[in-house]
Amino acid sequence: MVKLITIDALKSLISTIGLENFFIGVVGALKEDFQNWQHFKKTSRHVTHYPHGVMELMPAATDELYSFKFVNGHPNNPDASKSTVVALGLLAEVEHGYPLMLSEMTLLTAFRTAAVSTLAASYLIPKDAKSMAMIGTGAQAEFQALAFHYILGIETIQYYDIDKAAMQKFRTNLSNHAIRLKACDNLDAALEGVQIITTATADKTQAQILSSTKVKAGIHINGIGGDCQHKTELSQDLVEQCKIVVEYLPQTLIEGEIQQLSEKTVYAELWELVAGKKTGRSDEMEVTLFDSVGFGLEDYSILRYVWQEAQKYSIGESVNMVPDLDNPKNLFQAIF
Amino acid sequence: MVKLITIDALKSLISTIGLENFFIGVVGALKEDFQNWQHFKKTSRHVTHYPHGVMELMPAATDELYSFKFVNGHPNNPDASKSTVVALGLLAEVEHGYPLMLSEMTLLTAFRTAAVSTLAASYLIPKDAKSMAMIGTGAQAEFQALAFHYILGIETIQYYDIDKAAMQKFRTNLSNHAIRLKACDNLDAALEGVQIITTATADKTQAQILSSTKVKAGIHINGIGGDCQHKTELSQDLVEQCKIVVEYLPQTLIEGEIQQLSEKTVYAELWELVAGKKTGRSDEMEVTLFDSVGFGLEDYSILRYVWQEAQKYSIGESVNMVPDLDNPKNLFQAIF
Repeated sequence: MVKLITIDALKSLISTIGLENFFIGVVGALKEDFQNWQHFKKTSRHVTHYPHGVMELMPAATDELYSFKFVNGHPNNPDASKSTVVALGLLAEVEHGYPLMLSEMTLLTAFRTAAVSTLAASYLIPKDAKSMAMIGTGAQAEFQALAFHYILGIETIQYYDIDKAAMQKFRTNLSNHAIRLKACDNLDAALEGVQIITTATADKTQAQILSSTKVKAGIHINGIGGDCQHKTELSQDLVEQCKIVVEYLPQTLIEGEIQQLSEKTVYAELWELVAGKKTGRSDEMEVTLFDSVGFGLEDYSILRYVWQEAQKYSIGESVNMVPDLDNPKNLFQAIF
Repeated sequence: MVKLITIDALKSLISTIGLENFFIGVVGALKEDFQNWQHFKKTSRHVTHYPHGVMELMPAATDELYSFKFVNGHPNNPDASKSTVVALGLLAEVEHGYPLMLSEMTLLTAFRTAAVSTLAASYLIPKDAKSMAMIGTGAQAEFQALAFHYILGIETIQYYDIDKAAMQKFRTNLSNHAIRLKACDNLDAALEGVQIITTATADKTQAQILSSTKVKAGIHINGIGGDCQHKTELSQDLVEQCKIVVEYLPQTLIEGEIQQLSEKTVYAELWELVAGKKTGRSDEMEVTLFDSVGFGLEDYSILRYVWQEAQKYSIGESVNMVPDLDNPKNLFQAIF
């Protein structure tokens, strides 16, 4: 039997655990797995390219568990009222190779992306950071806002998007949470006085949402939206002056903000901060950048956490996706 | 919503369509897709290796549909009363990248392997072939026997396995079908007078189940069991004298019987026979070999056929695995 985590099962799980505890649990699993980095079998994703989008498989594995995510990327989908990215995930045990869980992964991707942002930020934000600018209030924005609130105690979010309806949506969705929200009329107003800048815009091309003249000393930039080839958000002069942390260098060199630059500009991979091999912020004046593109290990972390909690609370239907045989040679028996 | 094909749903589908029609439908889909070979995006599988097994992802895609299979390979699993191979499959549409169907694929793999064997055999068996030797009566044997019976009119099967219980299982499972079954005490007896030899043994090493002295002129060999590195069933001298047809040469050179030989020994890829670019058997005396290892396109074919039939007969539960959003930017709405 395979556990099936539908959208409804995930809702039920999060409502059982509580949103804050769910974020704390996901960040905990991510931290453990990044500490265990050397034991992961790491590969780049398998991408099938089309003129209008991509279909990807992102595997990650240790000696205990194996996971992959199936995820598309279709930038024109919103024109057809569909999501740019939807995803499904699988978790399997390695001992016998049997699948354990099939899960929705569109929402889990948003959760793990926000969670890994806060994990990186925990090593990089300035002391006593209390406010964040949210540039871009699309599908990822509320997840980032809540993760920074719950994990790092961010109290104020100054938000700006060129789409006023998206800004209203962001405000409405967060109205029941204890975050002080300040709608801003322009980018400069959103950046005023904050210690953290999160960029999560959906520009399809090399954009320059932020340049070095906009960013004050001591800021941490959480760069989410520059996440595939020919899609960046930050100007080259800004990226060059940052202390840059990435997830997995070979992949980020292709997909991240640093696709504009050489690998020499990168200070560390995130696991080096988590494992204590390198220090995070060492100077109150430096500008730090987490150049996030997403990595299979992060899907692994949230899938194993969801599996553990769904087992604990008996959430998710068990479905008969694997023949249960008295005799492994008698596969025919499973169907007749 | 995503259609879920569990073991029970597949049983229900096959019982609705009928086993013979199911095989005919799968072979029809395979034939169409092999004819369409040039339009497939072909890649080798993504393999994660462990000392005791493998975890694989096998994608295949056209401009309309995308599929992949997740499949393990754990040769020691039967010691723990588990199957060596279990699999799950996914079918998605390419236009927006949304998943259509998640399916059990352990049984579908057995079905598509048998179906592709008969597709290849339809170009390679001698005229008026009525009898087949089945060497190895493990998990794949009944599927092969029934496919050859339904698709090519094979009436008699002479079977042999070193495991007498597996032979009894084979007989019991096929007792309700109109195939004449002859249990044989040894390999030579099973080969006596047949026109086709199917080898489907599970030897984990380079074995020599068949050598050239055992095989008479004019025979077609359907070689199923030599399907991964360092696992072969046929002696080198036998393979060298055969007219060899493979699925996808770059993969078969690593995994098939021809891993012992050079690519020059291969006569054709299967699609070349299906598309009429090369003739199959041209001489009643030649020994032909279909060196089958399995290819992602075959999973694609059976998945799209099952999708089509499951839609037609409303079989398979629809499960909520993808957020259904009024506004693609409002992902948060899907969970709260």
